[in-house]
Amino acid sequence: MKRSINSLLMFAILAGIFTSCNNGKSNKNGDRGALSSNAAEKVYVAPGEHDEFYGFFSGGYSGNLTVYGLPSGRMFKEIPVFSQFPTNGYGYSEETKPMLNTSHGFIPWDDLHHPDISQTNGKLDGRWIFVNGNNTPRIARIDLETFETEEIMEIPNSAGNHSSSFITENTEYVVAGTRFSVPVPQEDISIKEYKGKFKGALSFLSVDQETGRMNIKFQLMMPGFDYDLSHPGRGKSHGWFFFTTYNTEEAHSLLEVNASQNDKDFIAAINWKKIEEYVNNGGGKKMPANYAHNVYDHSTHNATSTMKKEVLTVDPTKVPGAVFFLPTPKSPHGCDVSPDGEYIIGNGKLSADLTVHSFDKMINAIENEKFDGEAYGIPILNFEDILAGTVKQAGLGPLHTEFDGKGNAYTTFFISSELVKWNVETREVIDRQPNYYSVGHVMIPGGNSAEPFGKYAVSMNKITKDRYLPTGPELEHSAQLFDITGDKMELLLDFPTHGEPHYAAGIPADILAPKSKKIFKLENNKHEYATLTSDEARVERDGKEVHIYMSMIRSHFTPDNIEGIKVGDKVYFHITNHEQDFDVPHGFAMIGANNAELLIMPGQTKTLVWEPKQVGVWPFYCTDFCSALHQEMQGYIRVSPENSDIELTWSLGE
Amino acid sequence: MKRSINSLLMFAILAGIFTSCNNGKSNKNGDRGALSSNAAEKVYVAPGEHDEFYGFFSGGYSGNLTVYGLPSGRMFKEIPVFSQFPTNGYGYSEETKPMLNTSHGFIPWDDLHHPDISQTNGKLDGRWIFVNGNNTPRIARIDLETFETEEIMEIPNSAGNHSSSFITENTEYVVAGTRFSVPVPQEDISIKEYKGKFKGALSFLSVDQETGRMNIKFQLMMPGFDYDLSHPGRGKSHGWFFFTTYNTEEAHSLLEVNASQNDKDFIAAINWKKIEEYVNNGGGKKMPANYAHNVYDHSTHNATSTMKKEVLTVDPTKVPGAVFFLPTPKSPHGCDVSPDGEYIIGNGKLSADLTVHSFDKMINAIENEKFDGEAYGIPILNFEDILAGTVKQAGLGPLHTEFDGKGNAYTTFFISSELVKWNVETREVIDRQPNYYSVGHVMIPGGNSAEPFGKYAVSMNKITKDRYLPTGPELEHSAQLFDITGDKMELLLDFPTHGEPHYAAGIPADILAPKSKKIFKLENNKHEYATLTSDEARVERDGKEVHIYMSMIRSHFTPDNIEGIKVGDKVYFHITNHEQDFDVPHGFAMIGANNAELLIMPGQTKTLVWEPKQVGVWPFYCTDFCSALHQEMQGYIRVSPENSDIELTWSLGE
Repeated sequence: MKRSINSLLMFAILAGIFTSCNNGKSNKNGDRGALSSNAAEKVYVAPGEHDEFYGFFSGGYSGNLTVYGLPSGRMFKEIPVFSQFPTNGYGYSEETKPMLNTSHGFIPWDDLHHPDISQTNGKLDGRWIFVNGNNTPRIARIDLETFETEEIMEIPNSAGNHSSSFITENTEYVVAGTRFSVPVPQEDISIKEYKGKFKGALSFLSVDQETGRMNIKFQLMMPGFDYDLSHPGRGKSHGWFFFTTYNTEEAHSLLEVNASQNDKDFIAAINWKKIEEYVNNGGGKKMPANYAHNVYDHSTHNATSTMKKEVLTVDPTKVPGAVFFLPTPKSPHGCDVSPDGEYIIGNGKLSADLTVHSFDKMINAIENEKFDGEAYGIPILNFEDILAGTVKQAGLGPLHTEFDGKGNAYTTFFISSELVKWNVETREVIDRQPNYYSVGHVMIPGGNSAEPFGKYAVSMNKITKDRYLPTGPELEHSAQLFDITGDKMELLLDFPTHGEPHYAAGIPADILAPKSKKIFKLENNKHEYATLTSDEARVERDGKEVHIYMSMIRSHFTPDNIEGIKVGDKVYFHITNHEQDFDVPHGFAMIGANNAELLIMPGQTKTLVWEPKQVGVWPFYCTDFCSALHQEMQGYIRVSPENSDIELTWSLGE
Repeated sequence: MKRSINSLLMFAILAGIFTSCNNGKSNKNGDRGALSSNAAEKVYVAPGEHDEFYGFFSGGYSGNLTVYGLPSGRMFKEIPVFSQFPTNGYGYSEETKPMLNTSHGFIPWDDLHHPDISQTNGKLDGRWIFVNGNNTPRIARIDLETFETEEIMEIPNSAGNHSSSFITENTEYVVAGTRFSVPVPQEDISIKEYKGKFKGALSFLSVDQETGRMNIKFQLMMPGFDYDLSHPGRGKSHGWFFFTTYNTEEAHSLLEVNASQNDKDFIAAINWKKIEEYVNNGGGKKMPANYAHNVYDHSTHNATSTMKKEVLTVDPTKVPGAVFFLPTPKSPHGCDVSPDGEYIIGNGKLSADLTVHSFDKMINAIENEKFDGEAYGIPILNFEDILAGTVKQAGLGPLHTEFDGKGNAYTTFFISSELVKWNVETREVIDRQPNYYSVGHVMIPGGNSAEPFGKYAVSMNKITKDRYLPTGPELEHSAQLFDITGDKMELLLDFPTHGEPHYAAGIPADILAPKSKKIFKLENNKHEYATLTSDEARVERDGKEVHIYMSMIRSHFTPDNIEGIKVGDKVYFHITNHEQDFDVPHGFAMIGANNAELLIMPGQTKTLVWEPKQVGVWPFYCTDFCSALHQEMQGYIRVSPENSDIELTWSLGE
């Protein structure tokens, strides 16, 4: 399967550079761009009206998940997940710091990649959305009633958690596959020993259907390739999961050349139901592994971090019939399954043609045991036996494919910078539209489910250049919205995206909007340091620790003046927002604190730590304009010298 | 001037609560809202076309400045200023950590309020934009070629730096006024000693016209009121600066009642030219003061933080003719000066009428020495002597006023939730439009200058509720765009804002866009640890410190494999981006590092510190999708035990 570096690869490299250099010569919608004559009306959501879809866009290197409305392209929210978020104190407040704990300690950042919304029977149900931390390997679950991160599970034995975090059709599992293979367990060996020694872990996390809680059911220890993307089987292929690989050459240096040698890499087909049965019957091997499991509880308003000690690993060669390799040209990136579960698209990023495998043919080949050898004991199927067909000369540099539920697929081509619509059954190209510039992912709401909502497609472009007013050397990335209801795709809108979206997940508004939570009920607040009535407001000293039980309501803090704090104290502000109306948060900031602020929702308690270092009288105030008397919502704290004998006193402002 | 808490105040409090509770009953554009019939066309910026104006919106509690296009309402960029920004490593990388240094140590957050764009002869010149940190008092200067924060000056003797950061008509000074009065210098005294003992510092920072560098020229030590907002005189009133005050009652507890007793508070009129002359002639008193001055240099790509030790203070009673009080009903918030410099608007937030003072009348009263007593030695002018007139029953809860350059003013009313257009000369109301909900600020591009661009007004609303698809208890705030070219204002668009905008500054695109920098020239890179050619790439050990000189270009790191790193080392990745094309950043992330990533622009060097704690082989990779072979842009580092004798080696990938 080996060849030397070929002309296509060289072209890809050059073209990759070329597309980034065209400096916007073709930025207007000229010959190729089909701009709808009533595009303005189609994307306009009048004041007071609502968007039709939610779009959840990964923030990439922001570490956060952003929420957009479609078709307007307006950003409604940035949900902090893997990164500290000074805006509301996530990762700074005592309650949320445990969310960013890992086996490496507190990590203030990650690279958030692939959102996937929970499903029931292959259809979006809008309970949760799962995302992966691509760097320090983690999977997060975000609750879609509160739009808050509820859980983060670290993935041991992995590195660069990229072929993640996709779910099975009843959300039985969320899957995390390593991008970089590493020694398992980690050990002090030379990088030169990569080949044959490094492993690629594919992790299957079970999801509790009531609570959403995740648990690593098993890790499949695969050969030391790079596992790039993955998608679940559905319908008839439910029970299988598909992962693209690159670097089947097992190179460890100069990968841009050395990992592009093979004409075909693999899609790994995993029969997870078979492995589930195997481990339920006692199969697999427990191995020691340290990894963090962080859970946020919406009644205590607190996160806890637990360090897990063990994980169950499975050797794929021990479960016959569970794992097969599907040869696929060439360094396939996206791995996409059609809504009916029959077709598995391998987006071979260095291939001239787009590869479409048939699930039925795959099963047939497996049943007939027609193999073309094996790799590390895993059977390799014959390319010709499993191929449904190819989309010929569809474009250059295919990356990702989505579906519209009407028999069409939409593939992005990075190098030729276009979105191509083609018929899934006939593999004929129906339409192609240029993307500005160098498109990565595409999203159709429900596009990764059995029931896509084929009204809009959003392409997420990697290069922005001149699409917007310039903002210095650093630019936001850019998305483009297409109307896909006709034969031809109609470009409607360019809108900037925050961070770098690596995939997105869309869902009709009427699934999520009705159940969106408006407040936290104060009566349900089980925070250990809550102040449920302003009568309970007080200050308590415990040695050098001072706990301030504070309440806030328009437009007053109780207490609002405190004396008796001393240099060297560790002061905990435990602040409860007594509002019970929608959209009346209050904020809290302490002047000179080495911390972020707190943004506290109605009914919620949050805690900020302040270690005063300077004697004096220091104010605090509400940071979120809350009423006509917001500017008056303030207080003072007197800080005395460490050896002062001033007693603790506080004013209830009455 | 005292009265007990009056019925208007009670109404204000109740209305403040009421407007927050209306739960969107009037969210559609019904009887009162004038929605343009071609609003969609008016806000639509077709793909490939550009917006007409830049809008710089303060992020409030995000600590950052956001850049929008108008009329599209699209967010082009979030510029990190006062907060850590995991997205690009601001406040995490070695080069940028000094930017967040203060006299209290490193502070990862602030509450960014009022942007003001530099001016020449009262007109926007687009060199820099200034913003204030409202919490730990700071002023930042952002360069408008690179859209990066270049300088942050801490303000001593202040707390809650709110009446900031506005500039004089030639950018001679940027002004920072304390919101909360504090003991000056800070001392361990009871909060009960507030009245008469606490001071309010108004700081004037000179701006170097070549470099933009700031220096605190003097601090005016005013009585212990709360200084809310400020605006410069211009034209005939150039040389003066105006500050609103509240809490002239000098209350220190339960301010929402106790600071709303006086029927009139003051606008402080400061003749800064007179004070400048006084201090240039040796006036004022130097006092010890610790405050940080942080400067980012675009040639070394590095920030340095210097701790200043002294500040010049001025007692206003020592400079006769420099400071006067203008009585103004009632707890005035915004302080806005008309484009011709004649009118000073006091937006008395608890007043029934809007107060318009006359600069000419003020000068006349001062020349005639017609005073109504004094406060702490500062002359109080007669209200009737200086009043140009009032806008009768304009609305409830006025906060801010902007101007269109055609003789009209636009005032926001928080309680009655509307934007009101009125004639500056006649004080007659021309139009009023509802705002959804509870508007704070309004911005017209150039509205705080001698030459406004009166095409659009943007109202920035404090309460969002049902304006967009719901996203749980926490919502973005909401802005509304109006076409103000006709007699009636036409509502065009609702768009969400990121963080909480407290004011914004708009400027025509054709002033900024042509000079926006696209890359940093590699040949000008003076970073101490730059790797200017890949031949210079290397790894050097200095005891426990390891310095990795690394270069990056599509799609390779040099070196890409490193061995000989040990647990307990402090590893510095100094990474230089060798690209010299627009919009080809690369990112860098090290798996398991307790740090954010680096996002490195073409020609730039940045440094990430990693302290490996676990033995093993750990990958790093590029975080910004840069070419068709981006996924191959990776490398490995071997970490050996602390006592290992493995030598440093690295692979140049050749």
